[in-house]
Amino acid sequence: MSPDLKEFWQPPPIAPLDQQLATAMRGRIDGKAKPPGSLGRIEDLAVQLGMIRHPDPPRGDKAVLLVFAADHGLTEEGVSQYPSAVTVAMVMTYLAGRASANAFAAASNAAICVVDAGVAADLPAYGNLIAAKIRMGTANAAREPAMTPQQAADALARGCGIAIDQISTGADIIALGEMGIGNTASSALLVHRLVPATLQDCIGVGAGQDDAGMARKRTAIERAAARSDVTAPFDVLREFGGLEIAMMAGAVLGTASQRRPVLVDGFISSAAVLLAVRLCPAARDYCIFAHRSAEKGHDVILAALQAKPLLDLGMRLGEGTGALLAVPLVRAAARLLTDVADLSDVLAGNI
Amino acid sequence: MSPDLKEFWQPPPIAPLDQQLATAMRGRIDGKAKPPGSLGRIEDLAVQLGMIRHPDPPRGDKAVLLVFAADHGLTEEGVSQYPSAVTVAMVMTYLAGRASANAFAAASNAAICVVDAGVAADLPAYGNLIAAKIRMGTANAAREPAMTPQQAADALARGCGIAIDQISTGADIIALGEMGIGNTASSALLVHRLVPATLQDCIGVGAGQDDAGMARKRTAIERAAARSDVTAPFDVLREFGGLEIAMMAGAVLGTASQRRPVLVDGFISSAAVLLAVRLCPAARDYCIFAHRSAEKGHDVILAALQAKPLLDLGMRLGEGTGALLAVPLVRAAARLLTDVADLSDVLAGNI
Repeated sequence: MSPDLKEFWQPPPIAPLDQQLATAMRGRIDGKAKPPGSLGRIEDLAVQLGMIRHPDPPRGDKAVLLVFAADHGLTEEGVSQYPSAVTVAMVMTYLAGRASANAFAAASNAAICVVDAGVAADLPAYGNLIAAKIRMGTANAAREPAMTPQQAADALARGCGIAIDQISTGADIIALGEMGIGNTASSALLVHRLVPATLQDCIGVGAGQDDAGMARKRTAIERAAARSDVTAPFDVLREFGGLEIAMMAGAVLGTASQRRPVLVDGFISSAAVLLAVRLCPAARDYCIFAHRSAEKGHDVILAALQAKPLLDLGMRLGEGTGALLAVPLVRAAARLLTDVADLSDVLAGNI
Repeated sequence: MSPDLKEFWQPPPIAPLDQQLATAMRGRIDGKAKPPGSLGRIEDLAVQLGMIRHPDPPRGDKAVLLVFAADHGLTEEGVSQYPSAVTVAMVMTYLAGRASANAFAAASNAAICVVDAGVAADLPAYGNLIAAKIRMGTANAAREPAMTPQQAADALARGCGIAIDQISTGADIIALGEMGIGNTASSALLVHRLVPATLQDCIGVGAGQDDAGMARKRTAIERAAARSDVTAPFDVLREFGGLEIAMMAGAVLGTASQRRPVLVDGFISSAAVLLAVRLCPAARDYCIFAHRSAEKGHDVILAALQAKPLLDLGMRLGEGTGALLAVPLVRAAARLLTDVADLSDVLAGNI
């Protein structure tokens, strides 16, 4: 008998969006000073944002990117061309403000917080580092469960709390990012079981791999999959990891519980959203898929969640870079509802 | 014998980009702290920006949207479901800060200036209105030339000067937007002659039209096309208009002459870019195509200019709304070159 998440943690209540509101939101947008439909998908986004925040007006000014970082025992099997130590090196780079995520956050006027979900190193204190380490990286999922049920639940709960804290201090949008050498391997296992889909469809090159590296990655993932036949979301998480994925899934639930939009990055972030949605289906309504990643398994998740991303730029870095580029689109959609005059007022000279 | 632009105005010199620099830029980007190629099209954009500003670093902080507004005599033929008076009503809405362009500019932290290129009404003075009226709208191109050669040249020169002024006061990016009831009809004629392409491929619904309206639009455009068989860019401009398109084309030339990127919006803006590129082919190197418009003829221009837009969101409003959504992408690309650490420094702990 598998342990149940509820024995360890009770996710917050999440209300599904009231689909009756969609018609009224669409009507408001059609009344704006522009030809009906002429803002395309930004109008659809405005409808979603309006429903999420109803009866409050949607806002997008304060966007916070949470970069969840953790290590993966699977790296012992050679699933990545990069050593695990690159995770902590990149965390230090975010904290120094010199990674792609920092550059993109500056470009989109978003704040960035790094969350140590389980980096396999002691980290110094930093102003924008949230110390939430559950353990020093996961166990090697090819050999044993990535984490205990208690650790998996703690990671979910902590991620949930972090998102709620950010919202309580003013965040209008929570954007998801991650760093963790080996985390495309963990994500492939999650997606394989939670969609479900064949492993073949879920395994991509990640940060880049040659043929020998891809063979090692496939072998390690197949070994992990053969070790356990679980399919329940909480079981899949604790068997295959990772800590940053668990914490991101918790952040999705926390954000949705506070009726704020979650801006989803690429393959790993979407795997976390898939996990969150399998735990609490209503969370799906609060998710905005920022971009289509070039990582192979992303399309599998997007199809399972019936999601059509806003951007398609051939990116596959992670870190939240794709989510950050979509922040201004969310802001524009919110402002379409709140800032733009009605056509009737324009034509009557009431502006 | 057709009048030559050079009799009236000499465009500024524009240097084609040095394609030899591309390899060096690509090498710099490949050395950054991320897997090579993992930022997809943002890397291509960084290469272009790096080449445009070489040897200076690229910057994107100050983006200025210029919304060029003018009226079209073609509206007498019923080419739009909206009356010409909507042009001035929308100009007043931009100046009041309550149009979609204002909302999107706020979302992308861009400045917005409205340029009266030829609105058929007297406009009051406003801080962010540039009074550059050439005449009170074009003549009806279905019956006579839209403007005189002198007026066409003056509009080009004025647009060029406006862009150069903006850059001299700090603009890093010039984004193009427009407003002009009837301007998809003028643009269709320009694209038809300058690509060249069939009229059928260039005529779309614009701001929206029923079957009877589309029939009127097609008839008016065919009548204009039948009136004159010109194909030289300056001739096509003065025959078919419009004043905002001429001024936008001038702004493209001015921006390129100052080695700054031009962020191109949808169908009308791209028609202006096509005109600018036919006048001065080197200007093409400085153009970034923000989005793919849902207006039918846009694909024809994009194919002719071998352009692949960054966004594809089903938008067709104009005003620069699509260009504004891509501003943060340009900023991110610039910051990839200037802000992001090298992988060698990250791995050596030199951050």
